[in-house]
Amino acid sequence: MEAGGDDAGRAAAARVARLAARDPLMRLLGIEGAAGGPGRAVVSLTVGDHHLNFNGTCHGGVTFALADAAFGLASNSHGVIAAAIDAHITYQVAVKPGDTLTATAVEASRTRKLGVYRIDVTRGDGALVSTFTGTVYVTDRPNEPQAEVRRPASPSPPRRRRS
Amino acid sequence: MEAGGDDAGRAAAARVARLAARDPLMRLLGIEGAAGGPGRAVVSLTVGDHHLNFNGTCHGGVTFALADAAFGLASNSHGVIAAAIDAHITYQVAVKPGDTLTATAVEASRTRKLGVYRIDVTRGDGALVSTFTGTVYVTDRPNEPQAEVRRPASPSPPRRRRS
Amino acid sequence: MEAGGDDAGRAAAARVARLAARDPLMRLLGIEGAAGGPGRAVVSLTVGDHHLNFNGTCHGGVTFALADAAFGLASNSHGVIAAAIDAHITYQVAVKPGDTLTATAVEASRTRKLGVYRIDVTRGDGALVSTFTGTVYVTDRPNEPQAEVRRPASPSPPRRRRS
Amino acid sequence: MEAGGDDAGRAAAARVARLAARDPLMRLLGIEGAAGGPGRAVVSLTVGDHHLNFNGTCHGGVTFALADAAFGLASNSHGVIAAAIDAHITYQVAVKPGDTLTATAVEASRTRKLGVYRIDVTRGDGALVSTFTGTVYVTDRPNEPQAEVRRPASPSPPRRRRS
Repeated sequence: MEAGGDDAGRAAAARVARLAARDPLMRLLGIEGAAGGPGRAVVSLTVGDHHLNFNGTCHGGVTFALADAAFGLASNSHGVIAAAIDAHITYQVAVKPGDTLTATAVEASRTRKLGVYRIDVTRGDGALVSTFTGTVYVTDRPNEPQAEVRRPASPSPPRRRRS
Repeated sequence: MEAGGDDAGRAAAARVARLAARDPLMRLLGIEGAAGGPGRAVVSLTVGDHHLNFNGTCHGGVTFALADAAFGLASNSHGVIAAAIDAHITYQVAVKPGDTLTATAVEASRTRKLGVYRIDVTRGDGALVSTFTGTVYVTDRPNEPQAEVRRPASPSPPRRRRS
Repeated sequence: MEAGGDDAGRAAAARVARLAARDPLMRLLGIEGAAGGPGRAVVSLTVGDHHLNFNGTCHGGVTFALADAAFGLASNSHGVIAAAIDAHITYQVAVKPGDTLTATAVEASRTRKLGVYRIDVTRGDGALVSTFTGTVYVTDRPNEPQAEVRRPASPSPPRRRRS
Repeated sequence: MEAGGDDAGRAAAARVARLAARDPLMRLLGIEGAAGGPGRAVVSLTVGDHHLNFNGTCHGGVTFALADAAFGLASNSHGVIAAAIDAHITYQVAVKPGDTLTATAVEASRTRKLGVYRIDVTRGDGALVSTFTGTVYVTDRPNEPQAEVRRPASPSPPRRRRS
């Protein structure tokens, strides 16, 4: 759909930033820095005491949520709602308070109805913390008010969309 | 290790409750009601606005974290630290603010070094929201001060551990 | 779609048997005994020397293929083509030549477009060998000539389908 | 363990070739061309009629087995038995008779006890057919007679190993 040109890249990057800015869970967990492009997103988080499990290490749910945030942004970067079907994560190394984690999502494949994304989660020292693979079901509903998506500066009335 | 008798069951249930009570992420997300037993745990969460994603439905990371909490409690219910190796989750139905989700973990298998757990996440109306499968690496380190684990009522000083 | 009544159950069971009978890989690997019903299938295999890996135990690909056969039959038991999107398998115990493995698939959920199936693989002694979870994309194309599906003994011409 | 130098690379490549040569399932399915190195392996297969499912496309179990063969060779390339714990696969595009599939395995991480591998399966035209992620439990038992592993040209008698 997007030709990968500079305009498409800028539009996708701007969309990723807007979507991230209105994501409540990202705010709750302190997930930041959503950079992106067509089919791509990068987010990060610094592990605090509230992110730990009862064994004193970073909760697996936090690492997953970080990867999942990158997955959601990358798969929604094309402008239509993509809903997660499944995800798989591996945990390689323990993560401690003070560590900064970065999740980088890339699009492995995308058809009209399905998309597959791979996300690497790395620690500040470069260690690979987790590998994550997620699949989405692609809808035809825009994930933003359509006027913004198609022609942000246009004075003409937006076309109808599904509420 | 645990014979499955009433005493073992009560000890595991008490341990699950204690582990849950000291889990910071469960508190942050509002995960509650940790019932359990040997290899089993049940937790729940009512979805609020802070649990949503940018599309206005429950964030996949929240559903995962709920299942992961049950997984962590069930796999640590035997008294030694069990560390997650990998997890897989499917997403079947959308979850909205106000829905209550319950995650129920059971032990599919457990050997000296590895354990496999299956977690069902259901919605208040009984719909199956997610299926989750997780594997742990079983260590020989206790996940609580040993005196509590071995003889809760003992007046003798606990032995040192986990230096 | 299928009401779960006796007729629907018999039709699904018959379809599972017909689909299994024309599956080349099942024949190549010696997968047998396809029993089934709406959303359900059971198949089995006795491990021979040709099923082993270089370490002399049953190849993970064989255990997966057995579970996958049950998954494919269960997800196609309703009469339309269901295509696998993803699958996850765990391996709990080693399997040796002479062991008989049985894979039992059940439908965890099914919507208009997606279905989730859980498959247990057990050994002859009852040990749980593998847990398998698979998701399919449901099409509207019949997986058999429609006359057979709807009225096997009817002399009337089949209705047109699959335009 | 292996320094990644030329000698280690050649030894691992030779080991991958020897392991592949004695793998019965690879022979049964027609999986060929095992190239490899430390933590790496590449295998391929041309899809024939015996590899199909009842819908006439390549059976998911065949695609998995191909990826799993690469996974097994890569994870055993260091000389000790590595046993699969779990695996996840996605299916992106249909595969037809005559297509050639290639599976390429790389080591995402390896600790003393656990290893994570990622495998891409591609079609002859370059399309990504499947992404596969697998985890192994690393043992300390050699996967070949030890003399070969340690000193291939030695005239001294091999030390005893576990049969």
